[in-house]
Amino acid sequence: MSLSIKLHVTTSHLNYLNHRAKTNTNTNTSNIRTKPIYTSNPLIITTSRSRKMSLGSYGAPFIKSSLIEPDGGALVDLVVPESQRGPKILEAEALPKVKLTKIDIEWVHVISEGWASPLRGFMREDEYLQSLHFNALRLKGNGSLVNMSLPIVLAIDDQTKEKIGNSSNVGLLGPSGDCIAILRSIEIYKHNKEERIARTWGTIAVGLPYVEEAITPAGNWLLGGDLEVLKPIKYNDGLDNYRLSPKQLREEFDGREADAVFAFQLRNPVHNGHALLMNDTRKRLLEMGYKNPILLLHPLGGFTKADDVPLSVRMEQHSKVLEDGVLDPETTIVAIFPSPMHYAGPTEVQWHAKARINAGANFYIVGRDPAGMGHPTEKRDLYDPDHGKKVLSMAPGLEKLNILPFRVAAYDTSENKMAFFDPSRAKDFLFISGTKMRAYAKSGENPPDGFMCPNGWKVLLKYYESLQTEESPQQPAVLSA
Amino acid sequence: MSLSIKLHVTTSHLNYLNHRAKTNTNTNTSNIRTKPIYTSNPLIITTSRSRKMSLGSYGAPFIKSSLIEPDGGALVDLVVPESQRGPKILEAEALPKVKLTKIDIEWVHVISEGWASPLRGFMREDEYLQSLHFNALRLKGNGSLVNMSLPIVLAIDDQTKEKIGNSSNVGLLGPSGDCIAILRSIEIYKHNKEERIARTWGTIAVGLPYVEEAITPAGNWLLGGDLEVLKPIKYNDGLDNYRLSPKQLREEFDGREADAVFAFQLRNPVHNGHALLMNDTRKRLLEMGYKNPILLLHPLGGFTKADDVPLSVRMEQHSKVLEDGVLDPETTIVAIFPSPMHYAGPTEVQWHAKARINAGANFYIVGRDPAGMGHPTEKRDLYDPDHGKKVLSMAPGLEKLNILPFRVAAYDTSENKMAFFDPSRAKDFLFISGTKMRAYAKSGENPPDGFMCPNGWKVLLKYYESLQTEESPQQPAVLSA
Repeated sequence: MSLSIKLHVTTSHLNYLNHRAKTNTNTNTSNIRTKPIYTSNPLIITTSRSRKMSLGSYGAPFIKSSLIEPDGGALVDLVVPESQRGPKILEAEALPKVKLTKIDIEWVHVISEGWASPLRGFMREDEYLQSLHFNALRLKGNGSLVNMSLPIVLAIDDQTKEKIGNSSNVGLLGPSGDCIAILRSIEIYKHNKEERIARTWGTIAVGLPYVEEAITPAGNWLLGGDLEVLKPIKYNDGLDNYRLSPKQLREEFDGREADAVFAFQLRNPVHNGHALLMNDTRKRLLEMGYKNPILLLHPLGGFTKADDVPLSVRMEQHSKVLEDGVLDPETTIVAIFPSPMHYAGPTEVQWHAKARINAGANFYIVGRDPAGMGHPTEKRDLYDPDHGKKVLSMAPGLEKLNILPFRVAAYDTSENKMAFFDPSRAKDFLFISGTKMRAYAKSGENPPDGFMCPNGWKVLLKYYESLQTEESPQQPAVLSA
Repeated sequence: MSLSIKLHVTTSHLNYLNHRAKTNTNTNTSNIRTKPIYTSNPLIITTSRSRKMSLGSYGAPFIKSSLIEPDGGALVDLVVPESQRGPKILEAEALPKVKLTKIDIEWVHVISEGWASPLRGFMREDEYLQSLHFNALRLKGNGSLVNMSLPIVLAIDDQTKEKIGNSSNVGLLGPSGDCIAILRSIEIYKHNKEERIARTWGTIAVGLPYVEEAITPAGNWLLGGDLEVLKPIKYNDGLDNYRLSPKQLREEFDGREADAVFAFQLRNPVHNGHALLMNDTRKRLLEMGYKNPILLLHPLGGFTKADDVPLSVRMEQHSKVLEDGVLDPETTIVAIFPSPMHYAGPTEVQWHAKARINAGANFYIVGRDPAGMGHPTEKRDLYDPDHGKKVLSMAPGLEKLNILPFRVAAYDTSENKMAFFDPSRAKDFLFISGTKMRAYAKSGENPPDGFMCPNGWKVLLKYYESLQTEESPQQPAVLSA
């Protein structure tokens, strides 16, 4: 399948990203600046490739795209064009208001850029029920199914419901009380938290991070409707220029003339085992006949649990991995996936994969126990570590995506490097779990040589050192751990 | 869509049912007896219609069927033909054995007759995961989806798993220790009860009837494989002749030249509100242009919770409803649906509907809160009463079924009969819930005239009287309730 996409990036990826960082708005053909702007951000990818371009019917440059089609056929883009913002902002001001949480805003971001295409807003009840029961939505046109495993919903409390009354539209308020979006043709329905949690996580045990953060304290009603975002969501944390929308990513892939895009979802630092896997995947795609497979290294940027490494640290670590040449900047794009994390295992991995289809990826690398965690109250994994990849490979709406199962990498003590595990000489291999890695970093101890590039490791050491400094006045015992 | 089905019923429905009752085996073209046999069973439907028949290619009579196609294109029939039973029984005797519970046997019955077509045995893990996450199975051939909302699984404990060892096949033992089936090419996988319960019921609250009966006490492993049943499952409770298989029901519908079949699932006595609805449905189907719509009145016959009215009492009550002419025996087939009840609301109603497709029904009547119950630990309905019909109307694999939502009937005090509720004169209507009905019957009080046919009501009175007599020595207080 092929489609034409307008390309408005006329210079290198560097310039492009710089431009975004500087203008802090959604890129737009009307205000593209082509002059390179200096940035000290270590994550900038300095790769550029020549692009074949021609002029489209309106004079805008475009290239022919051979990327996978987004779900529903077209990318949803719900950000109001700048020229129409004035009247919309005025309209929004007169509407009943709903105050958003930090996670709600992450979802507004996700929906507005089309990661959840063809979803056009917070789910109404018919979408919510389909997501909850079938992990898929039926398209109104041809009746086909698109994957949609997580309910993307907006909870409100009794008072807010009362305040909305019979209004068909509401304004959505950001953290500083500014109206960031309008939700239209709204529908209010019951938020049965127990059922939502049970069907999404397969447990209702106390201690699920997303549940504790976003569901338990939430109201008893859900508010669905069509979203219009008054201006692009920005976080002003120095990382906004890595928050490429699906549209921008597709433009990048097209600009690089990618004939295969393989996505790697992660919320942890990249060690050499991950890198081995990603490099090996590229090799396999080349062997399959693809000429220019591009890696989308796609760390999750929304809500994560307290003991995960924060986004800014991970991004710095990822930049070192590229700087140290562990991954090839020529064939890698690093960008932030703005979704919050559910830790909902086989249910969530479908969302992670589906969103990457919308960003143009046609290959998805799936690991052991994706989006999994320990059971919050029992001494076991919450999910069977193999269920994620099994469920992903059978999920409705994901048939067009090529699932690449993770090969197990471990530290090969005979060669002092990360290598694919060879069961015939199992005793040579050392498995270094995320917990073990964090324990090394916390204690200031180095992992075996070749586990992670040295500059990447330093970023982690520095982070855990800073944590201990913060913690030490209250908890001196932690230092000896 | 049309298909040819062999017809081996050459006499009236009466003779046919009698034959089944007498021979106590699956009907089979080789041993059909056409001579009427007397039966005193009050539930026999004495209707017969002339049938157009011709001889098939092997000389067997068949008629052209216009019934809805079974899921997967062909009805599964896993009962070993009589001629092959000898060697299979010998083979089974040498296999490791798995002892079945009463509910396991109900599932063997269900699977063997093709109610769950195209499922051919207890689910292996790939089927289990699809059922749990997507409520649907993907067909291996064309990739299309069939509905399958309940996991149909066989749990075994550690000792049984140990005993099975590396055997690829096992024998399944009935209550008296006789081997009733073989499960072939088996697969053993983990039984994560918490996840199964949460995803099926949307809660893990203590007190779910099926969970307490069949899951909590069950083993920690699930055993999947292909089923072969050594002879048809019989219960010897005087009701086996009403346990018509999907194949037999299709033959009946074809024999009656049905051009529409509408199924009514129930686990309660039939009151005049139900009857009004069923009769009204037939009227509507005639208005739609169907010439001969047939009602499948299809009480569930497997496991039910302790305070439901037992099957034998319900069947006697249903017979009175037909005898009293409340439903028309000419256009009604009463048969037993052998599945156990889950009380899993929107998840289970899909199973109830899907199984009826396999039995030839192309219309399905869905009520308020189908397969619902009160929350076991909270003072509310377990499910939103409207979710059942909504989920059913959106369920993958059920697109070909026509869903008929239940119109609300209530007792019209101005006319002393059950009638469709008219909101413009709401005060005239009296809602008599199942609980209220049971309270009437328990106290020996009569409901308002016209609520239920008098002979049907007598059956219930007699049943609750017998309960109180049984209970009185221990619990005299109940009598005054």
